[in-house]
Amino acid sequence: MNAERNEGESAPRGPKTITVPLGERSYDIVIGPGLIDEAGTRIKNVLPHARVAIVTDENVARLHLDRLRIALDSEGIDHNAIVLPAGEKTKSYGSLEQVVEAIIEGRFERGDIVLAFGGGVIGDVAGFASAIVRRGMALVQMPTSLLAQVDSSVGGKTGINSPQGKNLVGAFHQPSLVLADTALLDTLLPREFAAGYAEVVKYGLIDRPDFFEWLDENHREIFAGGTARIDAIAAACEAKAEVVARDEMEEASRALLNLGHTFGHALEKVCRYDAARLVHGEGVAIGVCLAHRFCAHLGLAPDEDARRIEIHLSAVGLPTRIQDIPGEEPKVDDLLDAIAQDKKVSRGALTFILTRGIGKAYVENGVDPQTVRGFLEQELSQ
Amino acid sequence: MNAERNEGESAPRGPKTITVPLGERSYDIVIGPGLIDEAGTRIKNVLPHARVAIVTDENVARLHLDRLRIALDSEGIDHNAIVLPAGEKTKSYGSLEQVVEAIIEGRFERGDIVLAFGGGVIGDVAGFASAIVRRGMALVQMPTSLLAQVDSSVGGKTGINSPQGKNLVGAFHQPSLVLADTALLDTLLPREFAAGYAEVVKYGLIDRPDFFEWLDENHREIFAGGTARIDAIAAACEAKAEVVARDEMEEASRALLNLGHTFGHALEKVCRYDAARLVHGEGVAIGVCLAHRFCAHLGLAPDEDARRIEIHLSAVGLPTRIQDIPGEEPKVDDLLDAIAQDKKVSRGALTFILTRGIGKAYVENGVDPQTVRGFLEQELSQ
Ligand SMILES: NC(=O)c1ccc[n+]([C@@H]2O[C@H](COP(=O)([O-])OP(=O)(O)OC[C@H]3O[C@@H](n4cnc5c(N)ncnc54)[C@H](O)[C@@H]3O)[C@@H](O)[C@H]2O)c1
Ligand SMILES: NC(=O)c1ccc[n+]([C@@H]2O[C@H](COP(=O)([O-])OP(=O)(O)OC[C@H]3O[C@@H](n4cnc5c(N)ncnc54)[C@H](O)[C@@H]3O)[C@@H](O)[C@H]2O)c1
Ligand SMILES: [Zn+2]
Ligand SMILES: [Zn+2]
Repeated sequence: MNAERNEGESAPRGPKTITVPLGERSYDIVIGPGLIDEAGTRIKNVLPHARVAIVTDENVARLHLDRLRIALDSEGIDHNAIVLPAGEKTKSYGSLEQVVEAIIEGRFERGDIVLAFGGGVIGDVAGFASAIVRRGMALVQMPTSLLAQVDSSVGGKTGINSPQGKNLVGAFHQPSLVLADTALLDTLLPREFAAGYAEVVKYGLIDRPDFFEWLDENHREIFAGGTARIDAIAAACEAKAEVVARDEMEEASRALLNLGHTFGHALEKVCRYDAARLVHGEGVAIGVCLAHRFCAHLGLAPDEDARRIEIHLSAVGLPTRIQDIPGEEPKVDDLLDAIAQDKKVSRGALTFILTRGIGKAYVENGVDPQTVRGFLEQELSQ
Repeated sequence: MNAERNEGESAPRGPKTITVPLGERSYDIVIGPGLIDEAGTRIKNVLPHARVAIVTDENVARLHLDRLRIALDSEGIDHNAIVLPAGEKTKSYGSLEQVVEAIIEGRFERGDIVLAFGGGVIGDVAGFASAIVRRGMALVQMPTSLLAQVDSSVGGKTGINSPQGKNLVGAFHQPSLVLADTALLDTLLPREFAAGYAEVVKYGLIDRPDFFEWLDENHREIFAGGTARIDAIAAACEAKAEVVARDEMEEASRALLNLGHTFGHALEKVCRYDAARLVHGEGVAIGVCLAHRFCAHLGLAPDEDARRIEIHLSAVGLPTRIQDIPGEEPKVDDLLDAIAQDKKVSRGALTFILTRGIGKAYVENGVDPQTVRGFLEQELSQ
């Protein structure tokens, strides 16, 4: 975080721009309130002659699609919209096919743009479609959820879920531009805002202990909106851009971004992606707590750090324990099955992101499933 | 072609190796009889610890799968086989999903191999699956049809068909190794061998007039088998490797490989991919004839070259005119619709590979659909 965080909330500022440095495939993330109205101009600057296939979900379409259309119309950009049902179940083969066929039907060409306008679900499925229609079209991400603004819209991971597990099918496909209009977050349900916040905290836990401290002090301001929120989003994007630039294809260090996700994905899977019970960011919140408690259990990290994280996440209304999930309690066997099928499995042994404490995460390839079983049994017996 | 073409047919020779030079993603194409028995060793040399998901079709499985399994077993390589129905209809969303789910079910990991063992259909669908499972696994191509050995297994284009057109959905995903066992071609139906031969001739027509001359003189030997066949396959792979190295992602000159394909794909589509009427290579045969006659019609190329090509292709039993397709005659409107939806369309105007004569193909982005209509009407009225 830089000095800007201390500015008054009402001080007018231009949008912040962060560049993801990937050589020929470098692109900007632009962050600020009201950017939706500049979408036409900003897209035209990057891809002057392209037509635009907007992909969005029913919630975002109802609230914000008209304004986006007006912004594109004002620059004479020809566009179509494809509206999908909201929610994780949209990350499926069926929706992917539907989006791909609609794009082809609209006669979009290789140089045209797929514009992902929504949360992480839309970003992932529309991004994947843009990677595979005609073996690759241009992609612009306009993330509308906090989670998508701080995480999923940046870095080029796209994909859908398999019935066997999350994100098991997909492509690396970088966007040409990311436009994060922070004012759109005002219509987000508080529960979804909190879910996205779990991914913000994650960056602090991985390797930015000062950022975690700052979040701990400023979370009320961030939830209230204003410049602290924008600063938090920009800091998160900077953290993500740095990780992605170092290891675009997740051959090594990018895996750190999965902190909390092995547990989190397993929880999502056993809850059958039922948003009434658990959304992705909530799974991450419980997952980072489990990861820290697991490492405390192994004697790798201080108990106290796990406690601090729980207190912080509880304060913003996030779940921190498996038992916080409403409905039937997940079974250890089902969780272990899901963990073994998660994509962070390497040659039989389990790969986990472990930690020595806040800001000290690392990749461990040799985790014994029996140790995980023992830990989960203990967790669920409490 | 080099001096080797004059060697006696029975002279024993080791396999030929051609390297596709793509930096970090460079790989070898190994060509020769009996390579299937060396598959285990050769795969192990390139990817030492990988497990193998074989994808094949019912015909190839019946004829050759046992031998492949033995070769992998002999090196202690763990493997599964996924067997699909034979034919173009297998390049569908449904088969793709089936292959992807079977690979995940088999707990294959990112470093493991998808082994495409079959013709171009299997290479395309299995290659695409390997591109998207866990956002990219390793791929080995073992092409078993002539068409796949000289064209589809090399260069990294993978994909499936959309109901709206051929190859509209896919990825660029280079293999780590291509093993072309030329002895497997002995079980190929003569009609399929001829179809693959159309793609061999294509390389001569694009920019290798000497190769076309050599084919014209040696086609009997090539169809009979032996060293002339191996030489023709190697020469075709060299031509393709050169084009791919120059323009991997088809931003420009790689499009030349589509000579004859805009017409050919349209014909395949209006025949509904019914192999009883037309297979891909036959579409290419008619397509290159149409492309040359179209250019003669426009006064760009000598009539005589078009005639020579027709005579050559007819001599090996390939169709050269739309009217050679059995069944109901295609309608000009349907062909034009299919052409407009083909992937070689850029910003409204039609992109065609045109030619100034044998060995003088070039990319033309501004072809007027009305000119094409006039030409096709004339073709069909003859
Ligand atoms: N690709 C990546 O790198 C990456 C990283 C993290 C997460 N993800 C994926 O992202 C997904 C989760 O993203 P998400 O939490 O954004 O889910 P989401 O897309 O389902 O959005 C959450 C809910 O908020 C609604 N919504 C979005 N924007 C809104 C707005 N401005 N106003 C009102 N409602 C709005 C949506 O309609 C939805 O109901 C998961 O599938 C996860 O796997 C991907
Ligand atoms: N990816 C590319 O760059 C590229 C290039 C050219 C063509 N293609 C695609 O390739 C496909 C055509 O390939 P194809 O002609 O090989 O079709 P194919 O895979 O359908 O094979 C043709 C027939 O031959 C059979 N067969 C294959 N090997 C055999 C063997 N050794 N013995 C007996 N039978 C055998 C198959 O079962 C099938 O019935 C088309 O879909 C085309 O679009 C792709
Ligand atoms: Zn996440
Ligand atoms: Zn072809």
